[in-house]
Amino acid sequence: ALLASTLLVGFVSVTLSLVWVFHYREGLSWDGSPAEFNWHPVLIITGFVFIQGIAIIVYRLPWTWKCSKLLMKFIHAGLNTIAMILAIVSMVAVFDFHNAKNIPNMYSLHSWIGLTAVIFYSLQFLLGFVVFLLPFAPVHLRVVLMPIHVYSGLTIFATVIATALMGITEKLIFALKSPAYSASPPEATLVNCLGLLLVIFGSLILWMASRPHWKRPPAENAKILRLNAAAPEGTQVESTMTNSSDADKSDLRINTEAARKQNINFDEAGQRSTM
Amino acid sequence: ALLASTLLVGFVSVTLSLVWVFHYREGLSWDGSPAEFNWHPVLIITGFVFIQGIAIIVYRLPWTWKCSKLLMKFIHAGLNTIAMILAIVSMVAVFDFHNAKNIPNMYSLHSWIGLTAVIFYSLQFLLGFVVFLLPFAPVHLRVVLMPIHVYSGLTIFATVIATALMGITEKLIFALKSPAYSASPPEATLVNCLGLLLVIFGSLILWMASRPHWKRPPAENAKILRLNAAAPEGTQVESTMTNSSDADKSDLRINTEAARKQNINFDEAGQRSTM
Repeated sequence: ALLASTLLVGFVSVTLSLVWVFHYREGLSWDGSPAEFNWHPVLIITGFVFIQGIAIIVYRLPWTWKCSKLLMKFIHAGLNTIAMILAIVSMVAVFDFHNAKNIPNMYSLHSWIGLTAVIFYSLQFLLGFVVFLLPFAPVHLRVVLMPIHVYSGLTIFATVIATALMGITEKLIFALKSPAYSASPPEATLVNCLGLLLVIFGSLILWMASRPHWKRPPAENAKILRLNAAAPEGTQVESTMTNSSDADKSDLRINTEAARKQNINFDEAGQRSTM
Repeated sequence: ALLASTLLVGFVSVTLSLVWVFHYREGLSWDGSPAEFNWHPVLIITGFVFIQGIAIIVYRLPWTWKCSKLLMKFIHAGLNTIAMILAIVSMVAVFDFHNAKNIPNMYSLHSWIGLTAVIFYSLQFLLGFVVFLLPFAPVHLRVVLMPIHVYSGLTIFATVIATALMGITEKLIFALKSPAYSASPPEATLVNCLGLLLVIFGSLILWMASRPHWKRPPAENAKILRLNAAAPEGTQVESTMTNSSDADKSDLRINTEAARKQNINFDEAGQRSTM
């Protein structure tokens, strides 16, 4: 139910951003006009908020615990790749629009914090790829870096939402002239609601990401660690994980429940699943 | 070192808000002029960001673990009381200024999310007071509500910082006319830096609040629970806690270290210290 609400709030947010640019603004195009700027809110809300939010919680969905950890990692990394591409395209749209209209770049707090968030997101992406996806990093390094990876991910996500709220504020003040933003025309009400939905979406994601009993159980992880010690080649580990995801489903349900209970007793920092 | 950095960033933020209103703006007064509005950023940054942030981390400072839990609760509740009073006064200043200048109230996304944050903060305050400070709530209710209290507190805090960033964006756009915000005058640069510092302050508080090994150890808590079962009167529990804080310091240091280690093995959700 919580996942359904989160997806619903996310979909409604993306829809409202499209209603905003198509019904109240100039639509979408790539010609240096305000319609090029409009890619910015649409792609940020779709990619940097919605898709990044889903990428954060993919490990927290109990029905994915029977999938291999490697598959989940690819989904996590894939969603984050899409989010980053959309964020970069949306930034190019703004710079292109500003340059076409001779509007200065990077003067606002929105742009300062937004660019900082994109830089930290890229570093986080690179760190995640090298340490957690590639098979070279030693286990103790993964254990040390995992809490930092989780904290950075959530902090960057919250910062992205805060930046989106600043961007909405800026755009409504600049775009609404007669009637002005302060006269509360329908566009202002619609986009304020969009902003509220982004806060609700962020809160739901943070709730799902911070519940310890939704943490992926470390049972499979322990098995992989044992296999790694015996045979360091990544291929064998991967095939074992695939086999385990093909196993009998009722068995898996029992294992998952047992693992969930075991997981609750696990220490947050030290024993965290880091593979 | 982390606490020192956090306090430093907080102090510099409050100082920058004062430099902003006294050096670049109209100073502070209570006469319906823009100088009355200026109480808003100063009191929000001082109370709703800085003091609320410190209130969040008082339980996470290892050198306070030898203090009684009740004393720490009073400090936590006291700091939050100050933060709420300052936030309410700062809102009155804005409404008063708007009414004096015939500016509409509550039209912006900043005002919508800000008011929502204040309402949730008040509910959180009331819940915290009734359930965790008054001695009537049963232990199992405290255990159930504690993770919600922690999550709500951090989410409200992050939302307050996001709202402050929107407020800064609004004010700079409205106040800077010649030169405009887009021309990056010194005031814009100073206040953008203030916004960045608020994000850094929030990130440091979230880091300190989310490290499991800085969680207050439950040793004393277990003792109190045992005492509560024997003698339900709050007074005896309180005097015992005061005695324990007068005990030999070297003993306490050993106990604290042992409790810290024990604490790391405690479950995040179920066994959390809730007294």
